[in-house]
Amino acid sequence: MNGMIPLDLRLLRGTLLAALQEDVGPGDITTRSTVPLDALGMAKIVAKQPLIVAGIPVVAEIMHLVDPALQFARPVVDGAAVETGTVLGEITGRARSLLVAERTILNLLQRMSGIATLTGRYVEQVQGTKARIVDTRKTVPGLRVLDKYAVACGGGMNHRVGLFDGVLIKNNHLAFQSSPAHAIRAARRQLGHLVKIEIEVHYLDELLDVIEAGADVVLLDNFTPELTRQAVDIAGGRVPLESSGGITLENVRAYADAGVDYISIGALTHSVPAVDIHMRIAPWTER
Amino acid sequence: MNGMIPLDLRLLRGTLLAALQEDVGPGDITTRSTVPLDALGMAKIVAKQPLIVAGIPVVAEIMHLVDPALQFARPVVDGAAVETGTVLGEITGRARSLLVAERTILNLLQRMSGIATLTGRYVEQVQGTKARIVDTRKTVPGLRVLDKYAVACGGGMNHRVGLFDGVLIKNNHLAFQSSPAHAIRAARRQLGHLVKIEIEVHYLDELLDVIEAGADVVLLDNFTPELTRQAVDIAGGRVPLESSGGITLENVRAYADAGVDYISIGALTHSVPAVDIHMRIAPWTER
Amino acid sequence: MNGMIPLDLRLLRGTLLAALQEDVGPGDITTRSTVPLDALGMAKIVAKQPLIVAGIPVVAEIMHLVDPALQFARPVVDGAAVETGTVLGEITGRARSLLVAERTILNLLQRMSGIATLTGRYVEQVQGTKARIVDTRKTVPGLRVLDKYAVACGGGMNHRVGLFDGVLIKNNHLAFQSSPAHAIRAARRQLGHLVKIEIEVHYLDELLDVIEAGADVVLLDNFTPELTRQAVDIAGGRVPLESSGGITLENVRAYADAGVDYISIGALTHSVPAVDIHMRIAPWTER
Amino acid sequence: MNGMIPLDLRLLRGTLLAALQEDVGPGDITTRSTVPLDALGMAKIVAKQPLIVAGIPVVAEIMHLVDPALQFARPVVDGAAVETGTVLGEITGRARSLLVAERTILNLLQRMSGIATLTGRYVEQVQGTKARIVDTRKTVPGLRVLDKYAVACGGGMNHRVGLFDGVLIKNNHLAFQSSPAHAIRAARRQLGHLVKIEIEVHYLDELLDVIEAGADVVLLDNFTPELTRQAVDIAGGRVPLESSGGITLENVRAYADAGVDYISIGALTHSVPAVDIHMRIAPWTER
Amino acid sequence: MNGMIPLDLRLLRGTLLAALQEDVGPGDITTRSTVPLDALGMAKIVAKQPLIVAGIPVVAEIMHLVDPALQFARPVVDGAAVETGTVLGEITGRARSLLVAERTILNLLQRMSGIATLTGRYVEQVQGTKARIVDTRKTVPGLRVLDKYAVACGGGMNHRVGLFDGVLIKNNHLAFQSSPAHAIRAARRQLGHLVKIEIEVHYLDELLDVIEAGADVVLLDNFTPELTRQAVDIAGGRVPLESSGGITLENVRAYADAGVDYISIGALTHSVPAVDIHMRIAPWTER
Amino acid sequence: MNGMIPLDLRLLRGTLLAALQEDVGPGDITTRSTVPLDALGMAKIVAKQPLIVAGIPVVAEIMHLVDPALQFARPVVDGAAVETGTVLGEITGRARSLLVAERTILNLLQRMSGIATLTGRYVEQVQGTKARIVDTRKTVPGLRVLDKYAVACGGGMNHRVGLFDGVLIKNNHLAFQSSPAHAIRAARRQLGHLVKIEIEVHYLDELLDVIEAGADVVLLDNFTPELTRQAVDIAGGRVPLESSGGITLENVRAYADAGVDYISIGALTHSVPAVDIHMRIAPWTER
Repeated sequence: MNGMIPLDLRLLRGTLLAALQEDVGPGDITTRSTVPLDALGMAKIVAKQPLIVAGIPVVAEIMHLVDPALQFARPVVDGAAVETGTVLGEITGRARSLLVAERTILNLLQRMSGIATLTGRYVEQVQGTKARIVDTRKTVPGLRVLDKYAVACGGGMNHRVGLFDGVLIKNNHLAFQSSPAHAIRAARRQLGHLVKIEIEVHYLDELLDVIEAGADVVLLDNFTPELTRQAVDIAGGRVPLESSGGITLENVRAYADAGVDYISIGALTHSVPAVDIHMRIAPWTER
Repeated sequence: MNGMIPLDLRLLRGTLLAALQEDVGPGDITTRSTVPLDALGMAKIVAKQPLIVAGIPVVAEIMHLVDPALQFARPVVDGAAVETGTVLGEITGRARSLLVAERTILNLLQRMSGIATLTGRYVEQVQGTKARIVDTRKTVPGLRVLDKYAVACGGGMNHRVGLFDGVLIKNNHLAFQSSPAHAIRAARRQLGHLVKIEIEVHYLDELLDVIEAGADVVLLDNFTPELTRQAVDIAGGRVPLESSGGITLENVRAYADAGVDYISIGALTHSVPAVDIHMRIAPWTER
Repeated sequence: MNGMIPLDLRLLRGTLLAALQEDVGPGDITTRSTVPLDALGMAKIVAKQPLIVAGIPVVAEIMHLVDPALQFARPVVDGAAVETGTVLGEITGRARSLLVAERTILNLLQRMSGIATLTGRYVEQVQGTKARIVDTRKTVPGLRVLDKYAVACGGGMNHRVGLFDGVLIKNNHLAFQSSPAHAIRAARRQLGHLVKIEIEVHYLDELLDVIEAGADVVLLDNFTPELTRQAVDIAGGRVPLESSGGITLENVRAYADAGVDYISIGALTHSVPAVDIHMRIAPWTER
Repeated sequence: MNGMIPLDLRLLRGTLLAALQEDVGPGDITTRSTVPLDALGMAKIVAKQPLIVAGIPVVAEIMHLVDPALQFARPVVDGAAVETGTVLGEITGRARSLLVAERTILNLLQRMSGIATLTGRYVEQVQGTKARIVDTRKTVPGLRVLDKYAVACGGGMNHRVGLFDGVLIKNNHLAFQSSPAHAIRAARRQLGHLVKIEIEVHYLDELLDVIEAGADVVLLDNFTPELTRQAVDIAGGRVPLESSGGITLENVRAYADAGVDYISIGALTHSVPAVDIHMRIAPWTER
Repeated sequence: MNGMIPLDLRLLRGTLLAALQEDVGPGDITTRSTVPLDALGMAKIVAKQPLIVAGIPVVAEIMHLVDPALQFARPVVDGAAVETGTVLGEITGRARSLLVAERTILNLLQRMSGIATLTGRYVEQVQGTKARIVDTRKTVPGLRVLDKYAVACGGGMNHRVGLFDGVLIKNNHLAFQSSPAHAIRAARRQLGHLVKIEIEVHYLDELLDVIEAGADVVLLDNFTPELTRQAVDIAGGRVPLESSGGITLENVRAYADAGVDYISIGALTHSVPAVDIHMRIAPWTER
Repeated sequence: MNGMIPLDLRLLRGTLLAALQEDVGPGDITTRSTVPLDALGMAKIVAKQPLIVAGIPVVAEIMHLVDPALQFARPVVDGAAVETGTVLGEITGRARSLLVAERTILNLLQRMSGIATLTGRYVEQVQGTKARIVDTRKTVPGLRVLDKYAVACGGGMNHRVGLFDGVLIKNNHLAFQSSPAHAIRAARRQLGHLVKIEIEVHYLDELLDVIEAGADVVLLDNFTPELTRQAVDIAGGRVPLESSGGITLENVRAYADAGVDYISIGALTHSVPAVDIHMRIAPWTER
C-alpha cells in the first residue's frame, strides 16, 4: 500500500481541524475542570478485536494539531492485520491534550480501520481469482480521500476519486442519449487523451454494442453470477469487466469465479461497522 | 421533532459545499460529455425499503448550492416513516445540475435516513417504558450536527453536542483525581451555574458516593441488566441514570425494563447501515 | 483561573491572523522603508497603570504567527494584579517583526486586561458575600472566547458561552408562550438531560410560579436591591438566583448583600475601557 | 457620510457570519424549545437614549444571513442623531430567526452607534475651528472597517486604515534611524509617488527639522495645548499638524483653538461605551 | 465548446471574491470620493482588436458578487471570434459598483480571451491535419480551471487538469526507476482501471520499448519535426503520440504534418499576451 | 530591494497552498506509482537564459508547505541578474515531495522572474534619466502582491497596490463629475490627510486646470513623446508627471527623455513571457 507524503496530510489538515473544532468548540469543560493544567499522561490505543489498521498517520496529525509537544510511538503501520490486544500507539504529554483529542482520534481510527477490515474480508474471499475488490463514490461527505485510503489499506483497489478523474456513463446519463454507443462516441469526441470511458450495462445484449462503440471498461450492473459468466464469455477479453450491485460477502466469490476483473462494493464505505478500539489514559512522569 | 431555521442550514453550507467540491473537483467530465448543456430533466428520489426519512432540507440546500434554478417538490417531511416505493422528492431543472448533485445528495440522505431508521428501531424496542434512546459523540467527523439531527428525526434524544456543552466525567478523567467524589466537587467549583455534571461509574458501590457528591446524572458503564436494576434501586430516583456500553437491539429492552432513564447507543452513528434510496433522472419538458 | 491548552490557542489562530491581516494588509510600508531588514530589536511591554493582566498567551501566539523566530520572555501570568511600571513581557528578534505586531498585540492586550481589571473591581466589591460576578453574551463579535477568558482572569465566573450551551428564557421568548410555567415545561420536554433551564422574571409574583414549574435558575431582571431581598426570601434556597440589569460598581454591593447567588454585568464586556499598556522597541544585539 | 455599496457589505459577510456562528454554534436551544417553528414575529429596535445611529446596513446584512425571508423597514439612516424612543428598525418574519439574530445585531449596533455618538460629542466640541476629529488604529481586532465607518457616521474623519495605506513614522521606528530627517529621506526614496509621510515629534525643536526634511504631515505627540500653539506658529502653515495623546472631551477644544488641523483620539474606538438600544419581539400576523 | 453549469461558477466564487478583495481591500477611495452613491451608469465592454472571446460567464459572476442588482446584457458567447469594435457586454446599474468591478473584470477577460485567441492561432495552423492542440499544467497558480477553459474556448483540447487525473511519467520520475518499461509496469500495478499512462521519451530508440511495455500515450519531448516523422512511422498507430517542447506558431505545422495526434504548448498559458479590451462607463438613466 | 518578513510570507500561505491543492488535488498518481516512498532526491533549479531572479523566498515557502523536512540551499537572492546555467537553488529530501512541488514552484518562479526580467529591460532603457518605471493594477487575479514584488525585484517602483491605498481619478470617474477640477475638490473634501490625488488627463489643455485644482500627481494618458515634452514644460515642476498608455521597450526612452517622472507599463504584469528555468531531480543520498 502507498504511504502519504507530508503534503497529503497537510491538505487534510483543514478537515481534521474542523473535526476537532466540532467536538471541542469553545472548550472541553470536563477536562478543564477535572484535570490539572500541568498533569502529564500516557494514552494507550489498543485493538479490542482482530482488525486491519488504517489511520495511524492521521492520528499523528491530529495529535500534532492538538499539541505539537505530544510524543507518539507507533508500533504498527497502516495495512497491518493485528490481533485483539495489540497496542496501536502510545502517546505521551500534557494530559489535557490527550483527553481533548481522544474522541476525534477514535472516531476516525475506528471508521478507517473498520473500512480496511471489511475490505480485507472481501479481498480474502476472492483470493486466487484475478478479480480485484474496488471501492465506489459512496463515501461519507468530507472523508472521500480517507475512506479510499482505508480501502487501499485493506487490500482493495481505488476506483476513480470523483466525477473529475474518470468517466462512468450510467443510466441517468443514457436517458439523454439515443443509445449507449452514441453516448460513448459523444464522450470520446470531447474528452482528453488520458481519459478512459467506462459504461454501465444492464442486459447481456447491450454488451457487444458498447464494446464495439469503443468502451474501455464495462460495468455489469446487477447481473447474477450466471449472467456475469455469460458476459465474460461474450466480452472475450476485449475489455475489462466490472461487477457491481447487490454483492455481499456471501456471493462475492461467485462473481469472482465468473471471471470478472473488478468487483465494486458500495458497502465498503457506505455501511461501515466501526471496529472496537480503546484509548486508556493514565498519569505519566517524564523520565 | 424540531425543524431547522435558515441560519442552521446556512451554517452547514460550508460542509455541503465541501462535499460537492470533493466529488465534482474541477468538473464532472461524464456529464459534460454526454448530456447537452440545455437539456432539462426530472429526478425522482425513491425509497427502496421501509425507512424513516431524515435530510430533506439538506437535499434542498444541496440543490440550491448546485443550481438555484432547480425546483424541488417535497412530498414528505423529516421524521416520516415511509414504505418501499415512496417518492421522497422530485427535482426538476437543468439535467446537468441534477446529475452533478446526485451522489452527494444520496450519500447524505442514505446516511441520515439510515441513522433515523436505526434509531427508530431502538425507540420501538423501549416503547412503554420511561427510557429514552440517546446518541453519543461517536459521529463521523464533520457531520456531528447532521448525525444528531437524524437521531432526533428517528425519535431519539440528543445527548450533549460536544465537549463544550455538558460535563461527562469518565475513567480517563478520574485517573487524574483521587476519587470520583473529589472530581465532582472540583468540577462544580469551576463550572458555570447552567452546567450539569454527569459521571460514569463501573461498579455498584461507586454509585452512592457520586450521588452524595452531587452528581446530576450517573452513567452506568457496561452494567448488565441485572446490575442495572440494582442500581436503579440504590439510586431511588435521586438522580437520573443512563445506561451505556454493549447495548444492542436484542438487549435494549432489558435495560429499559430495569428502570433507567436514558440509554445511549454509539452504534446509532458509528456503525450506520445506509438505507436504500434511488434517484432516477429522466428528460423533462417545462410545461 | 484555568489556562489554555495548545489547541485552544490554535482554534484562535484564524481570529488572530485575521487581526494581523486587517492591520498589515499587503505590507507595513512605514517599517519597510525605515527599518533595515536585518535589524534586531527588543520590545518591552509595560503597564502604565495598575491592572489585572489577561492575554499573555495570546501575545505569544501573535508573535509566533508574525515570526516564529521571535523570543518571548514572560515575567507575569494571566490573572496577576500588577503595579504601574511592571514589565509584562520582553520580546527579542527581527525589529521589523516587532513593529508589525505591535498594534495588534496592544489592541488585544489592552482590551483583555481592561476586562480583567474591570471585573476585578466588581469582584472586590462583593468580597465576603456569596455572590459571584458573571459575564453575559454582550461581547464584541469575534472575540467571545477571549472576552470571557478575560472575565475569568479578573476573578469572574463565565455564564453560558452562547445560545447553544445553556437555556435562558427571556421576555422575547415568553411572548410566544401562554405562561412562563408553560414555557419551562415545553423546554424541558425537548431538551437533553444535561441542560439546565434559567428563566427571567420581572415581578416578584412570577417567581414562585417558575420555581414550581421547575426552573433550575431564576434571573431577576431589573429588580431593585430591596425587591431582590424579597425574592431571596421567597425563593428560600430552592433555586439559585441571578441579578441582572442596571448594576454598577456603586450598587453591586447592595445586590450581593441582598443574598443573590450570581450578578451578571453586561458592561464587563460591552463597555470596556482599555487599560494603558505601552510597547517600547529598541535596537538589540544577540549575545 | 459615504454609504457602502453591496460589495463592501459582501466583504464583511465572513465577519458577520463568524459573529453569528460564535453565538449560535450548533443551535439556539432556548428558541428551539420555546418558540414554534412556524411562529411569526415583529422585532422593534428602539433607542433608549439620545444617540447617533451607525450600523443599519449591517443589521440588514445580518438579518439576510440569518433568514433571507425577513423583511426590514428602516425609518432612519446611518449618521442620524435620534432621541430616546426612536424606532431604528422593524423586522418581521419567522420568530425563531428574529430571536437567533437578536444578540449579534445588538452587539454590533450598540458598539457602532456608541462610537458614532462619542465621535459626535468630540466633533461638537471643536465646532467652529478648522480642526477635524480623526480616528486611530486602536480598534477592536476584526472590526477595523466597521469601527472606522462608525467614526465617519459620527462626523469624524478616517486616518489611514492600516499599516499599508499611509506612512506614520513613530519613535519605535526612529530607534533604528540616526535622525528623524534621515528617516524621512530613507522612506521617501523607497515609497511610491502616491504615499504621504507623517512623522511623530515629541519636542518643539524637532519640528523644523522634519518639516525641512520633507514631512507631509507632522504629529505632535503628547504636546500641551500651549506647546501646540507654539508648534502651530513654528510650522507656519507649511505642513498640516495633528495632535495626539491624552486628549479628552474636556481638553479637546483647547487643542482645536491652538490651531491644529487634525486631532486623533484613540478612545473613539478603544474605550467605547455601548449605547442603550433595545429589541422587543412580539407575535405578528402577515396581513 | 462545453459551457459551465451554475456549480462550476459557484466553485470559482472564492477565487473571484479573493480577486475583488485583493483590489478593493477596505474600499475604493477614488470612487467613493468622486461618484455619488446613487448615480447610475452603463459600462460597455468593447474589443479593441480581433479576438476570440473567453470569460463572459466569469464577468457575469463577478458583477453578481459586486452587486446582484446589476443588469448584464451579453451579445456574444464564449468561443466567438469577433472583430475590433465588437461590444462584448453592456452592464447597467449603480455606477460605483461598475467602477469597483472594472479592473477585476478586465484583468480576467483580457487574460482569458488572450489565451483563447492565441490557442485559436495555433489551431488554425494545424487545420486539415489530425493533430489537436492541447494545453499543459503551466498555468498561473490559482487560475488552472479558467486557463484551461479558455484554451477550450479557443478550440484547443484539455490535457489532464492536474497531478491527480492522469499519469505522465517524465524524466524526473524515471530517475528513480531502472528503465522506462519498468516504470510503466510499476505504475500499472498500482493504478485504477480508469487511468491511462503517458510517458515521455527523448530518443527514437526508447519508443518501441515503452510501446511494448504498454504505454497508452507517448510524449515525444523536444523531437525535431523530422524525428517526429520517424517516430510516427515506428509507432505505426499502436499508440497516440504527443509532441511537446520548443513548438511555436512558426513550426507547429511541421509537427502536425509529421503525423502526431497531439501537440502540447506551454506558452498557451504561461506566456499569454493580454488582448486589448476596454470598458467605458457613462451616466445612465433607467427607462 | 526590500525583503519580506516571515509574516508577509505567512499571509501568502493560503495562496500558495491553494496553488498546490489545485495541482495535486487528491494526490499525485504518477509519483505515487513510480517513485518509492522512501527514495531521497536532489532537485537543481537552473536558469536556462539570462534573467533577473524573483521568487526565491516563495520557493522556500512552497517547499516548506509540501514537506518541512526538505533542505533548501539558496545560492542567489532575489533581484540578482544571472547568466544561463546559474543554479538558483538546490533542494534535497524525500523525492516524492520534490516531484509534487516541481510544477507549482516553476510556474511561480518563471512568472515572477519573467516580470523582474522584463522590468529590468525597461529600467535599463531609461538609465540616466530621472524617470522611474512603475507598475499598474493589471496583474493576474490572486497574485497582485507577488507580481508587484517581482516588479520591485527588477528595479521598478510600485504604484498603489489597489483601489484602497491611493486615488487615481480616471475618465470613467470624470463621467460623473462636471469637471476634472471639480472632481479633485470633491475628492479632497472627503479623503484623509495621508491620501494623495492623481488624475488622468488626455489633452494638454486639461493639465493647467488640474494642477491649479490641487492634483498631487498628473497622469498623461496616451500622450505622444512630443506632447509629453510640452506637458513637462507646462507643469514646470509643480507636480510630478506620469506617462501611461502605449509605451513599449522601443519608445520608452523617448518618454523618459521628455522629462516625465514616472512611466507606468501594464505589460510588465499583464503580458509576461515566462522565463526559461528548469528543475532536474536525481536520486540522492544523505551523507
